[in-house]
Amino acid sequence: MRILVLGADGYIGTALTPHLQERHELELIDNGLREKNVNEVGSQSITEKDKRNYIELDVSTEYERLKEIMKQFNPDTIVHLAEQPSAPYSMSSAERSAETQRNNVIGTLNVLWAMKEVSPDAHLIKLGTEGEYPDWLWNGKHIPEGNRMVVNGDWEIPTPRYAGSWYHFSKLHDSMNIDYACKIWGLTATDVNQGVVYGHRNGARLDADEYFGTVINRFCAQAVTGQPLTIYGTGGQTRGFINLQNSLESIQLLAENPPNKGDFRVIHQTTKEYSVKSIAEKIQKVTGCEIQHIENPRAEMKENNFTFDTSTLDNLGLRAITLDDELPRLLEVMEKNKENITSNNPTTTWN
Amino acid sequence: MRILVLGADGYIGTALTPHLQERHELELIDNGLREKNVNEVGSQSITEKDKRNYIELDVSTEYERLKEIMKQFNPDTIVHLAEQPSAPYSMSSAERSAETQRNNVIGTLNVLWAMKEVSPDAHLIKLGTEGEYPDWLWNGKHIPEGNRMVVNGDWEIPTPRYAGSWYHFSKLHDSMNIDYACKIWGLTATDVNQGVVYGHRNGARLDADEYFGTVINRFCAQAVTGQPLTIYGTGGQTRGFINLQNSLESIQLLAENPPNKGDFRVIHQTTKEYSVKSIAEKIQKVTGCEIQHIENPRAEMKENNFTFDTSTLDNLGLRAITLDDELPRLLEVMEKNKENITSNNPTTTWN
Repeated sequence: MRILVLGADGYIGTALTPHLQERHELELIDNGLREKNVNEVGSQSITEKDKRNYIELDVSTEYERLKEIMKQFNPDTIVHLAEQPSAPYSMSSAERSAETQRNNVIGTLNVLWAMKEVSPDAHLIKLGTEGEYPDWLWNGKHIPEGNRMVVNGDWEIPTPRYAGSWYHFSKLHDSMNIDYACKIWGLTATDVNQGVVYGHRNGARLDADEYFGTVINRFCAQAVTGQPLTIYGTGGQTRGFINLQNSLESIQLLAENPPNKGDFRVIHQTTKEYSVKSIAEKIQKVTGCEIQHIENPRAEMKENNFTFDTSTLDNLGLRAITLDDELPRLLEVMEKNKENITSNNPTTTWN
Repeated sequence: MRILVLGADGYIGTALTPHLQERHELELIDNGLREKNVNEVGSQSITEKDKRNYIELDVSTEYERLKEIMKQFNPDTIVHLAEQPSAPYSMSSAERSAETQRNNVIGTLNVLWAMKEVSPDAHLIKLGTEGEYPDWLWNGKHIPEGNRMVVNGDWEIPTPRYAGSWYHFSKLHDSMNIDYACKIWGLTATDVNQGVVYGHRNGARLDADEYFGTVINRFCAQAVTGQPLTIYGTGGQTRGFINLQNSLESIQLLAENPPNKGDFRVIHQTTKEYSVKSIAEKIQKVTGCEIQHIENPRAEMKENNFTFDTSTLDNLGLRAITLDDELPRLLEVMEKNKENITSNNPTTTWN
């Protein structure tokens, strides 16, 4: 299978390439955005990531070149990771907010047009986010997969979504645009609503700063540097989580098992829901670190509870790696690279 | 009242300025996009529009200047018309599609940030579209105002929306971004879901080409130049319509009667629903012109039926101008300027 990876040099991209290349023929594209943005906020990857060869190209501004590469390579699958992934980064200034939505929405729109023009039979796997299902909207519910649902007995509507940051809204805008492209052009796509990823694999980059560090990675970095784990607010916020290795396996499974031609498949990629507090307590148990509650910079419910339907990946045979199994491995990576860890407490507030 | 008009040189903008300036203090901004795009598709305004003084500024790329002007002028109301308004234009190429979503989404995001930074008490009136309520989703229904509705007994969800072109999706993305800005920053806004506008007032520009001519204007231009009215498909498509004069009065009423601070008011601005065929027949009755059904270039239902709740403007006292009353006046304007009318049949297809 020929797989084109857009955004090959980010957190998932740098781990995905070695995972996929044993099985498939790859072409890699990146514009260096992650590296640039992480440096801009005064941080760096904690690990030294392996060097890989990719085509330097900005999907959001170089439409013609993108189309040309797709025409030459003729991909069966396009894995689209080429997005600005940080919610706090997108909330931190007008410029970063606009740049996040421009990069993500226009980049995806360009991919859709290029598919229509030169790769109408390819399968787009687009990394989305479970943040399109916010706490206030889905609290207390089991969140379904799919882009439509039936309410009021027989009314079919787009599955209700909303978001909780300019970044998360860029993903929601993407989802709507992809839905429409499949509808009018017959393109084939999978929108992967991914939970919060954690862990380290395959010589990937690893960030633990306030902008680009996801919560488990950030907590582990705090634990190994003797800082208290800083919980935003009560820690009663429940989210879906997935280990990086499981994320890579999921993408592989989805690529190898595409939906029917013309379908828009919306799935959840998560293996377990945790509250932030319960995660901190697990890490405390292993490391003996302290826990500190700080004012929540984000606009979110103090506590919430929901679960995600993950039938698609369950049926494809994804086997969950548990947080308990993973923690020692992640803490070891952090310990080995701890001289690279900088402060990771929030300076950007939502309200 | 101090009113800042963004996009003052478009179809509504050029008519709105003379209407508002008798009553309020205005500041006008435009970047010349409409003129540029109309020229780009080989067309022109049928009428010679009055010259007006406005600040040349691109809301989507000049954030700092926009913020500075807002700080100086200190508007009570911001009327935001600064968007690429053509669905077929947005469907006609990858570049135009991306440019439409970039201009509209990022422009609105910049306005929201500038409000947060320097005009948190201003009231944003944003021109949206009833195209956010597509036929397949709302067929057979009375479409409510408001940004939330209750389904399944007690579940409050964002009012279900979708769209029917890259342009219409840009408006939906805008609506979601405005909703969120009101929610987290306490901004005050009215999203004006406008029906299809027609008519001519106040020395405004007037377009009747396939890209920038709305259906009634386009039909009247065909009628006075001896062409058959070209109905896309069956003509059974029902949409909400509003006369330009009523559109101006609506904007004035909404400005003078803002929602409560921090509220996001979503309203419908339409005075009557018509099927496209029934409009053509009205014009045929007055002019004796021919009617021709051509293949529908758009992806839409052959026939649909819905109505819009217009309580907000009804309660504010808007008095509807009927299409029957307006037609002679619009046909006279077209007749007087008919040497400027070019072909207006579709070359851009949706699928």
